Amino acid sequence: MSTIQEKRHSLAHLLAQAVLNIYPDAKPTIGPATDNGFYYDFDFGTQKVTDHDLGRIQKEMKKLLPTWDGFVAISKSADEARTEYAHNPYKLELIEEIAARGEEITFYKSGEFTDLCRGGHVEHMNEIDLESFKLERIAGAYWRGDEKNAMLTRIYGLAFENKDELDEFIANMELAKERDHRKLGKELGIFSFDNDVGPGLPLWLPNGGAMIEELEKLAKKTEFEYEYERVKTPHLARESMYLTSGHLPYYEDSMYPPMEYEGGKYYLKAMNCPHHHKIFASEPHSYKDLPLRLAEYGTCYRHEKSGELFGLMRVRSMQMNDAHIYCTEEQFFDEFKKVIEMYLYYFKVFGIEKYVMRLSKHSKDGLGKKYIDEPELWLKTEDMVRQCLVDLKVPFVEAENEGAFYGPKIDVQIWSVIGREFTLATNQVDFAVPGRFGLVYTDKDGTQKTPLCIHRAPLSTHERFIGFLIEHYAGNFPFWLAPQQVAVVPVKDSNFDAAQEIYKKLRSLGIRAKIDLSSTGFGKKIRDAKNLKVPYTIIIGDKDMEAQMVTLESRDDGQLGQKTHDEIIDLFKSLQI
Amino acid sequence: MSTIQEKRHSLAHLLAQAVLNIYPDAKPTIGPATDNGFYYDFDFGTQKVTDHDLGRIQKEMKKLLPTWDGFVAISKSADEARTEYAHNPYKLELIEEIAARGEEITFYKSGEFTDLCRGGHVEHMNEIDLESFKLERIAGAYWRGDEKNAMLTRIYGLAFENKDELDEFIANMELAKERDHRKLGKELGIFSFDNDVGPGLPLWLPNGGAMIEELEKLAKKTEFEYEYERVKTPHLARESMYLTSGHLPYYEDSMYPPMEYEGGKYYLKAMNCPHHHKIFASEPHSYKDLPLRLAEYGTCYRHEKSGELFGLMRVRSMQMNDAHIYCTEEQFFDEFKKVIEMYLYYFKVFGIEKYVMRLSKHSKDGLGKKYIDEPELWLKTEDMVRQCLVDLKVPFVEAENEGAFYGPKIDVQIWSVIGREFTLATNQVDFAVPGRFGLVYTDKDGTQKTPLCIHRAPLSTHERFIGFLIEHYAGNFPFWLAPQQVAVVPVKDSNFDAAQEIYKKLRSLGIRAKIDLSSTGFGKKIRDAKNLKVPYTIIIGDKDMEAQMVTLESRDDGQLGQKTHDEIIDLFKSLQI
Repeated sequence: MSTIQEKRHSLAHLLAQAVLNIYPDAKPTIGPATDNGFYYDFDFGTQKVTDHDLGRIQKEMKKLLPTWDGFVAISKSADEARTEYAHNPYKLELIEEIAARGEEITFYKSGEFTDLCRGGHVEHMNEIDLESFKLERIAGAYWRGDEKNAMLTRIYGLAFENKDELDEFIANMELAKERDHRKLGKELGIFSFDNDVGPGLPLWLPNGGAMIEELEKLAKKTEFEYEYERVKTPHLARESMYLTSGHLPYYEDSMYPPMEYEGGKYYLKAMNCPHHHKIFASEPHSYKDLPLRLAEYGTCYRHEKSGELFGLMRVRSMQMNDAHIYCTEEQFFDEFKKVIEMYLYYFKVFGIEKYVMRLSKHSKDGLGKKYIDEPELWLKTEDMVRQCLVDLKVPFVEAENEGAFYGPKIDVQIWSVIGREFTLATNQVDFAVPGRFGLVYTDKDGTQKTPLCIHRAPLSTHERFIGFLIEHYAGNFPFWLAPQQVAVVPVKDSNFDAAQEIYKKLRSLGIRAKIDLSSTGFGKKIRDAKNLKVPYTIIIGDKDMEAQMVTLESRDDGQLGQKTHDEIIDLFKSLQI
Repeated sequence: MSTIQEKRHSLAHLLAQAVLNIYPDAKPTIGPATDNGFYYDFDFGTQKVTDHDLGRIQKEMKKLLPTWDGFVAISKSADEARTEYAHNPYKLELIEEIAARGEEITFYKSGEFTDLCRGGHVEHMNEIDLESFKLERIAGAYWRGDEKNAMLTRIYGLAFENKDELDEFIANMELAKERDHRKLGKELGIFSFDNDVGPGLPLWLPNGGAMIEELEKLAKKTEFEYEYERVKTPHLARESMYLTSGHLPYYEDSMYPPMEYEGGKYYLKAMNCPHHHKIFASEPHSYKDLPLRLAEYGTCYRHEKSGELFGLMRVRSMQMNDAHIYCTEEQFFDEFKKVIEMYLYYFKVFGIEKYVMRLSKHSKDGLGKKYIDEPELWLKTEDMVRQCLVDLKVPFVEAENEGAFYGPKIDVQIWSVIGREFTLATNQVDFAVPGRFGLVYTDKDGTQKTPLCIHRAPLSTHERFIGFLIEHYAGNFPFWLAPQQVAVVPVKDSNFDAAQEIYKKLRSLGIRAKIDLSSTGFGKKIRDAKNLKVPYTIIIGDKDMEAQMVTLESRDDGQLGQKTHDEIIDLFKSLQI
């Protein structure tokens, strides 16, 4: 049985054949599988192909599919390959590169179509369900992703094992549009951008501010349990610090330009680590102080290209759930495990059921070049990180030769309830930079040693995480996190006093209740609360006053009937985190 | 009876006579009264006068005092005055200025000494108690405070009504040295500076971080009660925003230089107001939304001169307990009163018993020039502000012609328990800038109106306020605020488990307890807790274990004997805020 990626790749070939049948002058370039299907890039010359043409092309694919069977590999010499693609400069460029590397040049044929290809197809095309794929959309794409190259036309297709999976994915895509954090973020008064402030610099409106407070409370409570210490550092530092950290010159393009000041340069911080290293360095430390866990919701600033800014997902200012754990080699395993445990706790809190961690390791021949030359420490820490993941039964993949310069790392991917994938955060092991900052502790034997450092940010940045949460919950935030938790709505003026009474009780408990005592009609007040996705609405009419009760309505569970003040308060208390 | 300032000024004359008796070539310049005494600046030429000489000079003053009686005013022509000071270029400069202004030139004579002077002396020198003053120290001072001028020698004296007051002041000064926030801040691990981060940019170490958290909790809780909304804004913005706000070009010298970026300029924010105005502007508002109170502990950056930086008291990054209240004219009085109430609440929390508010008003002829030209609004808001202060029985003074451009303001001065004065914060009424940002709300009648704005920051900045608190409490912070609240100290290894038990209980309640399970000796562990001024130490020995109790020691109240876990927990809970 072939894999889904082999099916997707095979469909890319089929797409190319279908396109060539309809547009014989089109020049095919490359066509890989993707996470949800496949695409193929073509040079259509002066011809214009749009989304309107997708139906015709898809029909041709479905007509061709039954005529194909397997894929036959054909090895060719460079000259033979060049002749085959005499009129296709893109394929010629690829052939020259393969030839230059001294690799074998292979073509794959299925039906009447032959393509330069490294393989990875289905055994038989009839393994592919005719209803399991769909051409999705057309987009422009530069040849090899480089804006200096020609603009090609990319045709995207979706492909899954069967029609049900395809339909589910399409339905989720529709849901995702409804849940788009940019759309909901505006409707729910969570954040805003302003041209005078600057692109990529979100202003958090009161409803976003309330969410930030709740997330920080959760983080601070959790980190207190894990015995982190909170610190606070400025948002800028002198050039000399970033020369020590190595951000300058290597990371300079991702930083805001410097402020020239008193004959020196100051840079906005793009990361919190150097400031935390300076805090570690500000006092002498003994082994008794370790592990030392310094935590800060620090705001960092990065120069992302205008064209790449995207709502809260890609911004220029980011408030990071950051911490740096300084520890000995002996403490490393436990510390790293506790970090992963904290992730799992948060996944539970937010109902994140699907996640994968990616362990990026060194490569042996990169030592001393791409990676700091500590072969034993690499192997040891990679082993320990792997063991943590195994112990905690975390799904993970390993990636050779993708570590950071200074140690192995773990990237965390999560999926929202509707199956959208988000990159949450990265944890890094660092056995190089503490040394560059001269960080030491005095060990039991009186010798000075350099601690290891773990960089971690399980709740990511407020920007990315709240963006995720908006889409994950479709704005229907759980009670504890909802910006407005309760709407108190009196039916008419004579119910105002009774409404005030429960309103004040709730506020005195720190519950984010609001009361609407304006002349707005009752129906409109109820609709306003619904539009803001307020978890609970408390209605007070004459009958409620007679009964010395209030009527409770839940956003998620509908009418809950009359309740006493105490019942309501108990319910709300039980829903706080 | 003469005032204390008249006595101090008279003593400055006496000081000059004493100096001239001993150093006949010295050139006297100016000698005013100060808040705690007086000083006089001299040009001693090549002669070196140091603190060692103060005794001799003071002795001479005390010898001269009984020989003086009152002060006699002598009016002189410019030429006569010039002749008098033919060899004193400083006095000559003053004479030229007085003459240029066309003012009368007066000299005052007492005993054998005559000085150019505008008056303001005692009637009889015998009103001054011989034991009520003391020469304090010698310092360098530029002529007229300008570093381009000659360096003079300043002799400072302390002077009060009597010996008791003088002694109390000196004792408090000694206390203040002990309490110096720079000294204690280092000893208690509260903050640190690092040259690679930059001058004036404090790093908050874990103990400072804990205090920041507690202060923010207090502010957030209080502001929640007053129905403020929390927002969060970036630390920079484009040039265009600061041109609208008027910070550019008028305030540019106090801002960090710009970052040039994508063809425009970005500035670090020196104030939070423009960002908050942008949040107000991001959504349409009706009168029902007002008052809207936007609060943020926003970090601002200001370019203070290197030479003026001073510990936490004058810094370049400041985290401000900021909020902006947007309201109608009708709401203004209540809103301003609630702001002042909040101050009074905080004063109670922190045991601040002495405070004064200074109401700065406009001047009629400054309207349209120094002040926005809204004569009625000025008078109305000044009246309302005054009425708030009167209603709340706040001690205050009024200052004509010292308002901000955009409205009256109140500056708040507080005194620490040992009598040191601190400038805490400023509240401003603003009826100009909301208009510049085009902020409007739709009123009941459908018309668009501009709200008033109140700027307020009752807890000042973390930097200034924590600096104050360190000196106010001499580092002996109340339980709720103390960075480390409890030290758990087992007497020996066999008591470790029992120590862990109470430690974990306390931590699970969010109490900042620490436990020392190292091999350090018991006595040293107790001393460490004392040095860190930890409010409570819990000691667990064999006898405690037998009794299933622990021994409690208080920093402030000494030995409290054996207690059960529950007793201790109840005590600590009662001390949290």
